[in-house]
Amino acid sequence: MATAPASSTLLTHKHHVRLGRLPLRSGAILDDVTLGYETYGQLNDAGDNAVLICHYFSGNSHAAGRYDSAEPVPGWWDAIIGPGKPIDTDRYFVISSDALGCVRTDAPHGLTTGPASLDPATGKAYGPDFPALDVRDSVLAQRLLMEQLGVTRLAAVAGPSFGGIQALCWAAVYPTMVERCIVAIGLAEFRAREIGLYHAMERAVRLDPKFLAGRYDPQEPPLDGLALAVELMMVAASGAEDLHSRFGRHPAPTGTGEWAIENWLDTEPRIRARNCDANAWLAMLRTNMRWDLALGQPSMEAALARIQARILLIPGTGDQLLDGTSYHDPMVDALRNAGSTFSVQSLSAEGGHLAGLSRIAEAGDAIRTCLNTPMRT
Amino acid sequence: MATAPASSTLLTHKHHVRLGRLPLRSGAILDDVTLGYETYGQLNDAGDNAVLICHYFSGNSHAAGRYDSAEPVPGWWDAIIGPGKPIDTDRYFVISSDALGCVRTDAPHGLTTGPASLDPATGKAYGPDFPALDVRDSVLAQRLLMEQLGVTRLAAVAGPSFGGIQALCWAAVYPTMVERCIVAIGLAEFRAREIGLYHAMERAVRLDPKFLAGRYDPQEPPLDGLALAVELMMVAASGAEDLHSRFGRHPAPTGTGEWAIENWLDTEPRIRARNCDANAWLAMLRTNMRWDLALGQPSMEAALARIQARILLIPGTGDQLLDGTSYHDPMVDALRNAGSTFSVQSLSAEGGHLAGLSRIAEAGDAIRTCLNTPMRT
Repeated sequence: MATAPASSTLLTHKHHVRLGRLPLRSGAILDDVTLGYETYGQLNDAGDNAVLICHYFSGNSHAAGRYDSAEPVPGWWDAIIGPGKPIDTDRYFVISSDALGCVRTDAPHGLTTGPASLDPATGKAYGPDFPALDVRDSVLAQRLLMEQLGVTRLAAVAGPSFGGIQALCWAAVYPTMVERCIVAIGLAEFRAREIGLYHAMERAVRLDPKFLAGRYDPQEPPLDGLALAVELMMVAASGAEDLHSRFGRHPAPTGTGEWAIENWLDTEPRIRARNCDANAWLAMLRTNMRWDLALGQPSMEAALARIQARILLIPGTGDQLLDGTSYHDPMVDALRNAGSTFSVQSLSAEGGHLAGLSRIAEAGDAIRTCLNTPMRT
Repeated sequence: MATAPASSTLLTHKHHVRLGRLPLRSGAILDDVTLGYETYGQLNDAGDNAVLICHYFSGNSHAAGRYDSAEPVPGWWDAIIGPGKPIDTDRYFVISSDALGCVRTDAPHGLTTGPASLDPATGKAYGPDFPALDVRDSVLAQRLLMEQLGVTRLAAVAGPSFGGIQALCWAAVYPTMVERCIVAIGLAEFRAREIGLYHAMERAVRLDPKFLAGRYDPQEPPLDGLALAVELMMVAASGAEDLHSRFGRHPAPTGTGEWAIENWLDTEPRIRARNCDANAWLAMLRTNMRWDLALGQPSMEAALARIQARILLIPGTGDQLLDGTSYHDPMVDALRNAGSTFSVQSLSAEGGHLAGLSRIAEAGDAIRTCLNTPMRT
């Protein structure tokens, strides 16, 4: 007797949309823009059951499901996206979109436009000549994707870290289109400490003699410098308690390094760096450093007051990358002063910044509640 | 009419003691060891009014006073060391000692033995061949200094960060000699996250093509790599709120960088790196990474139970270098379980790790109280 498969595994595909010419906030114009994305679930006839997912710094649009059943690890927010999950694909049409300048080059189905993709004017990779990207540029590209998909209204925009930044930006730029804004481990502006930390990561890439001011040979990329930048991101993003539980002061079992965590940091960042483009990484750092929701507005309160969406903040209380202790309180104060409708669901401190990925299920109920609560009228 | 000068400015001098042969914990032996130090106040006849001050990672023994009245900034703990101050030089004979392997080379009166000093066997700088240093090696050297100065007992050992580590180590290694142990922004062991962060700093130095596996030309040191390591230390040690107050998102006024904090990070770390030796910096990183008070003891509690001194902990609650949130609670638990006599005076979070230098005056009353409380009997 044939039965439906018992597994709830979501199978998905990577798609690409061609967006043509895209004017950037910098004044530059990109030609023949390509944007990668995935979708889970079905769009309803009204086109208003869509949820947009935006990705973190070194992520891409593979947020949920598997490309095939043999894929060992599903997408990065699979814990909360899928049939019956908090972002329920039986109910919502979930679109997960790349950001422009996505740093990943392990993209067998093609690159989203960024420094590593080919400039149609020259036929060569843009490299260091790629124009500066603003968060708003990705939001515009995603807006065009929504049009092509027939999405008229977003039940929610959600994402972790840089994805949360994009979600906030979406809600501010297209206030009447976004009903809910779910910001995990994100912030409304980069402050001095975060800018300083990202400056150090940039310097790590530039210190590599193979970087050659960005005109490196693609076969000889600045892997050592990029691996150090990735390592800094990993250490700053990891929860101190999680690292202690995993590595303690254990000696390195084999290989390089005196301690187990050194062994990990001697290997894992290089593996990740091999899947990234150094120029894209630097461009992404700069895009983040420039992030300020209040840009062009008289104040952060005024910027937040433009947002009509119900906001759910999901901070990591032990976050030492985007400094959970110092950004969260001012942001909540500004939301309160702006008269925003918002709630807060903190993730446990042990996970640090990465709690926004590894422990996002802790916020599952809060996400369900947010999605089930009608937009304020 | 002649009057005494109204200024309470403490004038001091750098001294050096020659300690001869020193056996290290690693099994190596250093010949002709030199240790730099300063003193403030007078030793009493019983030799028991001494307070030993130990310095932080990139510091040296210039903890208080000025070498001459024109020196713009006094020693780094001048706020609490001096006539009438919490560590009262009218009452105590205060010795501030270098650690072995002190990273600073801006030492006009000569170097404390370390990688940049001359190996008497070869007449050349030790460089990368300098043997591994343990915190206990510096404690032994300082113990020999105490003997030469006629100090029989220490009313207190105190220090910030790596200085607090040395203070804890002193109290554990010479329990009957130390009456009080004042540990500012210090910890009882390096854990995975701290080891990982220091690993990244080490990698920054090694990434510099001028490093040449430590055999760099002293006239062409790996300044870019060392400056990046210093930058990482500065960003991690600074309080997020202090940086925000100072730099905000202000654009760079002049010079390099887009933001004011970038301008600072493009200049200040290089200035500091010029005053340090890269091999000494790497050796100091490794000494810190290996720090574990419980080494050779059955447990941290057992190690702490050996300490007879009254302990004053002065954590920086916003500390993101030595992770105030994750090390402090386990340390307090261990002290409680060990039956230690201790108290805690936290510094305000805005200052981060550096609160142990910039805001140490906040703990002034707690330090006075600690020094005025008799040792437990």
